[in-house]
Amino acid sequence: MITSYEIFVPILMGSGAALRTGLKVKQMGLKKVLLVYDKGLKDVGIADTIAESLKNAGIEIVVYDKVLPDPPDTMVEEGAVMARSEKIDGIVAVGGGSSMDTAKGINVLMNNEPPIMQYFGVQKNLKPGVPMVFIPTTSGTGSEVTNMCVISCTSRGNKDSVVSPVCVATLAIVDPDLTMGLPPKMTATTGVDALAHAVESITGAQANPLSDALARDAIRTIAKYLPVACHDGSNIEAREQMILASTFAGMAFTNGLVHLGHSIGHTLGAKFHIPHGIGCAIALPEVIEYTSRTEYKKVRMICECLGAYVKEDASPEEIGAEAKKALRALIKSVGIPNLKELGISLEDVLKVAPLVTQDTGFALVPYRITAARVAEMLKSAYDA
Amino acid sequence: MITSYEIFVPILMGSGAALRTGLKVKQMGLKKVLLVYDKGLKDVGIADTIAESLKNAGIEIVVYDKVLPDPPDTMVEEGAVMARSEKIDGIVAVGGGSSMDTAKGINVLMNNEPPIMQYFGVQKNLKPGVPMVFIPTTSGTGSEVTNMCVISCTSRGNKDSVVSPVCVATLAIVDPDLTMGLPPKMTATTGVDALAHAVESITGAQANPLSDALARDAIRTIAKYLPVACHDGSNIEAREQMILASTFAGMAFTNGLVHLGHSIGHTLGAKFHIPHGIGCAIALPEVIEYTSRTEYKKVRMICECLGAYVKEDASPEEIGAEAKKALRALIKSVGIPNLKELGISLEDVLKVAPLVTQDTGFALVPYRITAARVAEMLKSAYDA
Repeated sequence: MITSYEIFVPILMGSGAALRTGLKVKQMGLKKVLLVYDKGLKDVGIADTIAESLKNAGIEIVVYDKVLPDPPDTMVEEGAVMARSEKIDGIVAVGGGSSMDTAKGINVLMNNEPPIMQYFGVQKNLKPGVPMVFIPTTSGTGSEVTNMCVISCTSRGNKDSVVSPVCVATLAIVDPDLTMGLPPKMTATTGVDALAHAVESITGAQANPLSDALARDAIRTIAKYLPVACHDGSNIEAREQMILASTFAGMAFTNGLVHLGHSIGHTLGAKFHIPHGIGCAIALPEVIEYTSRTEYKKVRMICECLGAYVKEDASPEEIGAEAKKALRALIKSVGIPNLKELGISLEDVLKVAPLVTQDTGFALVPYRITAARVAEMLKSAYDA
Repeated sequence: MITSYEIFVPILMGSGAALRTGLKVKQMGLKKVLLVYDKGLKDVGIADTIAESLKNAGIEIVVYDKVLPDPPDTMVEEGAVMARSEKIDGIVAVGGGSSMDTAKGINVLMNNEPPIMQYFGVQKNLKPGVPMVFIPTTSGTGSEVTNMCVISCTSRGNKDSVVSPVCVATLAIVDPDLTMGLPPKMTATTGVDALAHAVESITGAQANPLSDALARDAIRTIAKYLPVACHDGSNIEAREQMILASTFAGMAFTNGLVHLGHSIGHTLGAKFHIPHGIGCAIALPEVIEYTSRTEYKKVRMICECLGAYVKEDASPEEIGAEAKKALRALIKSVGIPNLKELGISLEDVLKVAPLVTQDTGFALVPYRITAARVAEMLKSAYDA
């Protein structure tokens, strides 16, 4: 099979790397940047640290701190109006996926007219925006190295994505120090998102040998270090390994693509407002079990990375069952709740199945699957 | 430690990918390309296959088929004269490191005046050349994804490199089919070059977590598949795994950098005209053993990838000894000769040691080492 690996973001990595933000932005020739973050980052002092680094380098800052979870299109459009009127020449986003997705959406609208919803889907001919520097503060989204942003469409009540070179950062700054203060629950929720990226991309429609290698490395690292990071948030080695795994998983899935688990995650997220990582993890074991029917060689690879034993002559079904068991064990070990524990009724959950098949990302599922089968998966995952 | 990963070449991978060369070159908007290869590739039909693909896509071709091993500066300069007078707008190089290095050298001289020797070293301000597409036919050099070319300086009688964005390909086409006809000896010689890239880059001066991940993957793959590819050249799985490992090792070392093993290899190559891969492999076990004094954590990683057992509480010396043993076993298993077997006298070999410390790449060695110590390594490797 002929495959290609094309999307790549230069990465500055390591403890303390974020302190070089101003220097890097200056080297890029920027003078006035939009600094995008949410108010939580102001409270913990991270926003100020980055702002100070920029100011010390002589960079003028315009702050946009109204980032919301599952960024709504309306907020992205508001940010873009600000960015355009302030004539910024670059964007620095600090935070989790919401901050970076907001920044990407704003960048799309720098030189393309709103509303942003008209650009959902793969866009090859958008006018370029400005250089962007992304600084993740969670180990999960991988958005710092991807070419897409997920936006909540307020008028339609769903999530959709813009996929475009305009969404690609000029530089990712991956600094584990910024994740040291993440509480265990958030560490777990974002960590299983990274796990979902790695696991789905290996079985994804555009998986290639390089995305596979990165995903394998990420799965091994997450299996080893996510439980450590959840139980001992001050373990710098675990934090460093997790943020690297998250970035590598991001590189893997922006090329290999995610599929059904994310369609389920996006749909559950839009419907019940549960965190993205939890939504993606809830039925991931069932999704990978099903995927093993066709992609059993890849699912065997996942088992190996998770340290699950699969006998030499195992059938696709047996490989799928082992993967499901190992994934469920890892997800539960870091306290991710199931749908029942989230207080959602089984009846409401099952109603979501047909919507999953209408998710934009559903087209990326590498096999045919009906809404009835998705409902079975959700039922299996409901109280698992 | 703060590290960065920046150099990246988009990669088209897979059996048959080379047949898309014309299509890809056309998509890049090129009209007339310099097709660079050596006469051997004409004989085995590969050059014609690529030429046909280009012609079918309506691309005009100017052939430069005078590529020599260890490309001399004079030939690069001759090729550049041809390229400039023919007003080509792109370069397609097919072959091993010599073809790609020749192409890179020509590209340096597209818009920068000869001689090329004035550009040896790291060059940040060269005028850009033209887009380049690289198609490796060996699994070793990794040159398709690196930012440097190694050129033999005829007036000085040594090898040196130009390191510059002008040496970076626009696209690498990595097609295992092109390596199917490589004889066992050439498979082994080029394969240990890839091994040296991976092993040295992990312990290199600019190693970073991403280059480490790629190098680890490459070492695991080479340890498993190089012996297979040498003993059964028609094993397509082994060929595919080896060319991918070679490319990943290239990505690793263009970021992490190689060091002493390559300084020894370049010096032996220039002095005794032995193939690059053999030169780099000859003292690699001794180099890594020595490197373990400071980089023992990294050398332990190498041992793990090679499947060598290292006890939990092993000292740096013990780790180094294990790595040396495992590397030597792998190198010997594919029939790489030692210096004695190459018919070079020990006396002549030892004279080379001071020259190693004058190699340009010697500055990249991540520890202080004297010519006397290098001589000891060469003595140890001489009949090992």
